Amino acid sequence: MNHTPPLFLTARWVIGPDGPMENGCVHIEDGRILGVCPRHEVPATLFEDAPNAEHRDLGEACIMPGLINAHCHAPMAILRGVADDMELLTWLEKGVWPLEKEFTREMTFLGAMLACAEMIASGITCFADMYVWSGEIARAVEAVGLRAVLSEGLLGFPTRTYGSVEESLALCRSFMEEFKNHPLIRFAPAPHTAFTTVSKQLVESYAMAGEFDAPWLIHAAETASENARVQELHGQRTIPFLDSLGCLGERSVLVHAVDLTDEEIEIIAARGAKVVHCPRSNWKLASGMAPVHGLAEAGVTVALGTDGAASNNTLDIFGEMRAAALGAKVREMDPTALHAPQALAMATQNGAATLRLPFSGTLAPGQPADLCVLNLAAPHLQPCHDPVSHAVYAAQGSDVCLTMVAGHVIYDHGAFLTLDYPALLDAGQEIAAHMREIMDRQERQRCEDARPQDSD
Amino acid sequence: MNHTPPLFLTARWVIGPDGPMENGCVHIEDGRILGVCPRHEVPATLFEDAPNAEHRDLGEACIMPGLINAHCHAPMAILRGVADDMELLTWLEKGVWPLEKEFTREMTFLGAMLACAEMIASGITCFADMYVWSGEIARAVEAVGLRAVLSEGLLGFPTRTYGSVEESLALCRSFMEEFKNHPLIRFAPAPHTAFTTVSKQLVESYAMAGEFDAPWLIHAAETASENARVQELHGQRTIPFLDSLGCLGERSVLVHAVDLTDEEIEIIAARGAKVVHCPRSNWKLASGMAPVHGLAEAGVTVALGTDGAASNNTLDIFGEMRAAALGAKVREMDPTALHAPQALAMATQNGAATLRLPFSGTLAPGQPADLCVLNLAAPHLQPCHDPVSHAVYAAQGSDVCLTMVAGHVIYDHGAFLTLDYPALLDAGQEIAAHMREIMDRQERQRCEDARPQDSD
Repeated sequence: MNHTPPLFLTARWVIGPDGPMENGCVHIEDGRILGVCPRHEVPATLFEDAPNAEHRDLGEACIMPGLINAHCHAPMAILRGVADDMELLTWLEKGVWPLEKEFTREMTFLGAMLACAEMIASGITCFADMYVWSGEIARAVEAVGLRAVLSEGLLGFPTRTYGSVEESLALCRSFMEEFKNHPLIRFAPAPHTAFTTVSKQLVESYAMAGEFDAPWLIHAAETASENARVQELHGQRTIPFLDSLGCLGERSVLVHAVDLTDEEIEIIAARGAKVVHCPRSNWKLASGMAPVHGLAEAGVTVALGTDGAASNNTLDIFGEMRAAALGAKVREMDPTALHAPQALAMATQNGAATLRLPFSGTLAPGQPADLCVLNLAAPHLQPCHDPVSHAVYAAQGSDVCLTMVAGHVIYDHGAFLTLDYPALLDAGQEIAAHMREIMDRQERQRCEDARPQDSD
Repeated sequence: MNHTPPLFLTARWVIGPDGPMENGCVHIEDGRILGVCPRHEVPATLFEDAPNAEHRDLGEACIMPGLINAHCHAPMAILRGVADDMELLTWLEKGVWPLEKEFTREMTFLGAMLACAEMIASGITCFADMYVWSGEIARAVEAVGLRAVLSEGLLGFPTRTYGSVEESLALCRSFMEEFKNHPLIRFAPAPHTAFTTVSKQLVESYAMAGEFDAPWLIHAAETASENARVQELHGQRTIPFLDSLGCLGERSVLVHAVDLTDEEIEIIAARGAKVVHCPRSNWKLASGMAPVHGLAEAGVTVALGTDGAASNNTLDIFGEMRAAALGAKVREMDPTALHAPQALAMATQNGAATLRLPFSGTLAPGQPADLCVLNLAAPHLQPCHDPVSHAVYAAQGSDVCLTMVAGHVIYDHGAFLTLDYPALLDAGQEIAAHMREIMDRQERQRCEDARPQDSD
């Protein structure tokens, strides 16, 4: 990190490590937070001592930690809205898979760029992704200047990016090596699920996560039918099965964790495994309501994820915070369950702990300057008695006016500073037109296939 | 309505009465929709025939019917976020009532103005409200140029706006008379609940609704404890009790309708009563998940409402559409339940039918030009395969760029054309400061009251 002059960001509100502070100041230097203090404590002589210091007042706004989207499939942004209101299997077989089959490397890159633009415009400074062609996703993340934990989803059968199980593990290792010293990107092993992989992939990738001190990501206990399938294949439900393989520990990141028994919650808590809660995707696909309150009560670190835009349909962590809090309350029939500061912690410091980025998630001294700024001037945020309540219960992603990663402003009042947004929109529309052609062709094919043989 | 020149609004998408149309045009004259057609059908010679016609191209946007918020307590906007994560009774007794007690007429007006600004900025063209000092709310609605169905909540005990039960009914009648010929505002009788009113209010106000052909609004079956209370007082749960009084018919609008038996759903359907579903308020207060899919399947007309900003915490019908659809899917564990076009209908034509404004809710010829325009240029809306999917599953209230009521543009790309927004923000902040003083004073009083007597 190059030496950069001191930056003092002031705003009506700052959500610091000890909660909201009215009229606060965040002091940033060399890409790191040096401190948070009341605005009046910034000495008047400061600019005399540091003549190159910059002071930027954000006015009626709230400076808060950058949001962490702990589960995404970024390139699926180009599938947004193509397959709503379907059964999971129909969604996959008729909506998602036939289109994904046609993805090229270039489409994957463009989908990732669209997702990155969407995420930074809504205050996300770090995300975890599971997809294929991770190199393309890394290229997008680097271009935009986001922080990310990337992975190449491991499957027990040949895919477009590898052939054998051994090749899948070798590909994973080569990515782990490639990114081990990257300033913003880490790589993580990510077996797809316990029923689409072979045990060798689970066990060896888990060991690899340990070797590189990385998180180990897996879709786990997403639905009752997943648990039934794992039971059928391995004689146990997902959580005990992973535990029996020795794959449940502090670096395990269980994505979704919807269909859990009380005993499984206890096992997860005892092993120190983490959970990524993706409420809106779980509800849309009717997977169920995760026992997020029970997990938190048991001491499990729960982070938030959006899942891909094909099942959500946006990558907006403000929406997930609110859904997590409202969902927990109505699931438990207890309005005190999962209060606003807890939901905010899930989207920030818990995300950091889950992705093994313990040096971020709050605006504490020494942490990287990953932050976002909520504009509080919109009518749906009037008046503001408590910015934490607003962040969780009233804000929309588009209320974010500034996003900074490692001290670099990458989104500023509608302007994308690291990408050409008009060109990206045009490219996205071209892809959409191309996908409509694919869908039309597939639909014609389905009609032809369905035509009786003797009608010719 | 004065004669106004023809206006042709064109955009990439128009959601007309038959669904989405790409490259469409809406033709408006004298405050009414004259028709929706493909853009290329607008004759090139049109402007020769009508030299004063205006053509406005909205570009990458979607013109859609104005959204209807069928249940609100507008002035509660000034209580946004003061009392989250509380039990209903704590919320009322410690959060809401002590503050509402301090409301003045001027605060009520300002709260309503803030709510109106928020609603028009998110595409709402009509709302139904239940509160006190309805004259103040009407003043705000008239100033802003919204359409509204207002009411003065009827209670079986003296309030700030009336003394006796007879006076409550007389006040209601005087409002019904005052607004019966108003171009944009109607008045409706609104008993608060079946357990906070006396039967005379229910029966007489229901008759009054018939007399004026108005809807009859009541919070009904919001929680299990409400049903228990009504059972205790009247020997029946809310729905059969209202039915036994003859108060369940086509003009009955049952707000919330969460705690319902299958038999009660059948009764509601048989009587033609309407339901207003307020998912996010119900979840936040842990009232439960309403059987909205079951109601729709039974043929009940279901509209959407936000409830007040003290329990939601925003007045954003896009958020309610998405919550309704996702909530129905996960409640029924069926991803095909309540699909996107159904959710959009709840927010538009069902709202109109529920509020007995059958002449609005779609962009059909002859209907008032109540519409909103969704800007589709934001990254969370890329690409757009289907604008109905986007409206329900991806849009945020702040994506609205234009709102029109009865042919008048009242909100246009961030500009409020009927109110002084900076002055409103200042007034809102003053009220917030005043309310913090009240809360501090109440907190000091509580501490003093709690001090042991013998400590002096």
